[in-house]
Amino acid sequence: MTAAILCIGTELTRGELVDTNSAWLADALTTLGFEVAVLDCTDDEPERIRQALRRLCAAHETLICTGGLGPTTDDLTTECAAAVLGVPLERDPASLEAIRARMERFGRKMAPSNAKQADFPAGARILPNREGTAPGFAVRIDRALAFFMPGVPREMKSMFEAEVVPALRPLVAAELHQVRLKTFGMPESAVNDRLAGIEAEHGVVIGYRAHFPEIEVKLLARDRDLAKAEARARAAAAEVRARLGDVVYGEGDVTLPEVVGQLLVEQKLGLSVAESCTGGLLSELITARSGASAFFAGGIVSYSNDVKERLLGVDRELLVRHGAVSSEVARAMAEGARKALRTGVGAAITGVAGPTGGTTEKPVGLVHYAVATEHACFDRKLNFPAARQQIQMVSAFRALALIRDVLLGKAAPESP
Amino acid sequence: MTAAILCIGTELTRGELVDTNSAWLADALTTLGFEVAVLDCTDDEPERIRQALRRLCAAHETLICTGGLGPTTDDLTTECAAAVLGVPLERDPASLEAIRARMERFGRKMAPSNAKQADFPAGARILPNREGTAPGFAVRIDRALAFFMPGVPREMKSMFEAEVVPALRPLVAAELHQVRLKTFGMPESAVNDRLAGIEAEHGVVIGYRAHFPEIEVKLLARDRDLAKAEARARAAAAEVRARLGDVVYGEGDVTLPEVVGQLLVEQKLGLSVAESCTGGLLSELITARSGASAFFAGGIVSYSNDVKERLLGVDRELLVRHGAVSSEVARAMAEGARKALRTGVGAAITGVAGPTGGTTEKPVGLVHYAVATEHACFDRKLNFPAARQQIQMVSAFRALALIRDVLLGKAAPESP
Repeated sequence: MTAAILCIGTELTRGELVDTNSAWLADALTTLGFEVAVLDCTDDEPERIRQALRRLCAAHETLICTGGLGPTTDDLTTECAAAVLGVPLERDPASLEAIRARMERFGRKMAPSNAKQADFPAGARILPNREGTAPGFAVRIDRALAFFMPGVPREMKSMFEAEVVPALRPLVAAELHQVRLKTFGMPESAVNDRLAGIEAEHGVVIGYRAHFPEIEVKLLARDRDLAKAEARARAAAAEVRARLGDVVYGEGDVTLPEVVGQLLVEQKLGLSVAESCTGGLLSELITARSGASAFFAGGIVSYSNDVKERLLGVDRELLVRHGAVSSEVARAMAEGARKALRTGVGAAITGVAGPTGGTTEKPVGLVHYAVATEHACFDRKLNFPAARQQIQMVSAFRALALIRDVLLGKAAPESP
Repeated sequence: MTAAILCIGTELTRGELVDTNSAWLADALTTLGFEVAVLDCTDDEPERIRQALRRLCAAHETLICTGGLGPTTDDLTTECAAAVLGVPLERDPASLEAIRARMERFGRKMAPSNAKQADFPAGARILPNREGTAPGFAVRIDRALAFFMPGVPREMKSMFEAEVVPALRPLVAAELHQVRLKTFGMPESAVNDRLAGIEAEHGVVIGYRAHFPEIEVKLLARDRDLAKAEARARAAAAEVRARLGDVVYGEGDVTLPEVVGQLLVEQKLGLSVAESCTGGLLSELITARSGASAFFAGGIVSYSNDVKERLLGVDRELLVRHGAVSSEVARAMAEGARKALRTGVGAAITGVAGPTGGTTEKPVGLVHYAVATEHACFDRKLNFPAARQQIQMVSAFRALALIRDVLLGKAAPESP
């Protein structure tokens, strides 16, 4: 069972927008059990759209198409699908009324151009849009069951889950269960090497999804019996955890800051941070999802030495003797954050994020970070000569991983 | 002159990685003067790679292909190109030596599998890789001048600029000049409406590139005479600035924080920030590029009210009477940051980023922000019911835009 994905839009072929729909759909279809063979994208030129539809529907069992369902004259997907099928367009009164009602709810009057969003190839099954104006539709073209959805990611994802998944699931004989493990701290190639043999041993398929600096490991099991699929995926996940150790920080949708937050809540500890070279990124990661107020007091971005001294109480002598980028200052910043913000745990990062400011002794990519508790202080060093953004991101993740290790009692007080 | 882009890699068709190369290449090719018709992506299946190469090279004048040049058995792009051409692979001794030398420089021994990265279709022009191991190559296939490059973005971009652009430029008859204007504060459709008529009037092509919450407006002029192209693009840019006003904050690669930073440096003022619902994002945007230390002292992420009181000196009575999300508290936070960090300017953001925590009176998306100077304090309100990340991003950009307006003397002290 192979599937193809087709995105339509000149804004994509001109590079005005990065297409994230295709990767999302490819992941979802792969999980469902399809082999996704191609992700194609064409501009709004009708002859190219028709050619792509004919070619992809002749070669694959499923086609997922996004974009070109809007109200403007550039939006030609529906017309092209009807032309390929050799059927006329038919206006659907219920869809027209839904579009009109929706626009009225937002205080807008339906423009004549919106009416074409209620046109569909004769015989198509209409896919309601819960999140926006343009409905989608499903038709059979040649070999393929073809689904047409809007290009707006939120509308597309909601329609895919509600309308497309139920239609596709019966095409895949087996039930499936997937476990997703979130990892940080090991390159993808090393993770891949460590997991050698698990696929065959446990009857699962291992997939990866990279989202710098994290790697998600997906364990997918298929079986006629859902319970058996789940048992196999679970057993494989246990084996992955055994082989990767603390590199696996969680399962499913959880983030590393959430894992840290849960430990802090369990241990009734508050967290504060002091950041220099990461400039607020650590705080931002911690507060990226709601719920951080249960454990996060706040942070101090001490970009200047003056702020390190006055707000964090870092001794000027330490700054002069060891420099701002040193384990001594990282420790003093972590202690300082703990005290200034009155929390059980303080974390700090200081380093050279570059591209300028590096020296032979303290090159770009040198970062010191530390975690202080009531009882001890832990510091670590990172050497990661990379682009500024990557240095900042890896530093923030390393600090989070160190907080976790400290809370789990797994961190040695001295630098390893 | 139409161009096609082809990405090769099962990691892409499985959705394990979002393809950002295609959008970057599409933008670059469009700027050069090509009409990019399709962006295709295929998995590592050799028959599908060959089919895609044949189809795209029959239909377009240029093909840019990325991926599949690595050392593993999955990397089959070179073999497929040779098969389509009907020529053998030939090993290039100079490339082999360069690969060996590069790996030695990084303290690694060349594996036998790396040797295949020095194989090229007979007759191909080899494209050196300044940033990595795998060289690329250029060949003519059918109608198309075809370029094959590695999939690693850094390597691909460097090779494209150094090797592909000089080869493509002669294919486009005209010289070109492009002006890129960065805008914030107006939706793309509204920008588009405001700029109606400029293309015809000034003989330019207007393009957009969306990077939430910003819109880049590109003005591209082509002419046999480069000076004329530049004059037309410049005149169009002046007209765009006149029509959009302060929505245009800069030109070229500049960021809004950099524009703010430049004004601060010129006026010899330091900046400090206090953040609640943005949780460090404003600081992070300011420090995303190096050079911020010239004007940025640091910030306080006051996630808890306790931190707002103690570190920023916000009166408890204000918090009780008006709540943490109020213009009064935003102003007190901005003043507090200025004083605590001893800077000329202080900026603050407090709001409900959601998805939880909203009330009828203070719904998700309500944000108050303020900018304090030695002489005055300015506050503004935002109502932006959206996803958490979007609320945070728009709030941070709004605060930056307000700092700019204050420094330019364009902000009225009272909320408009």
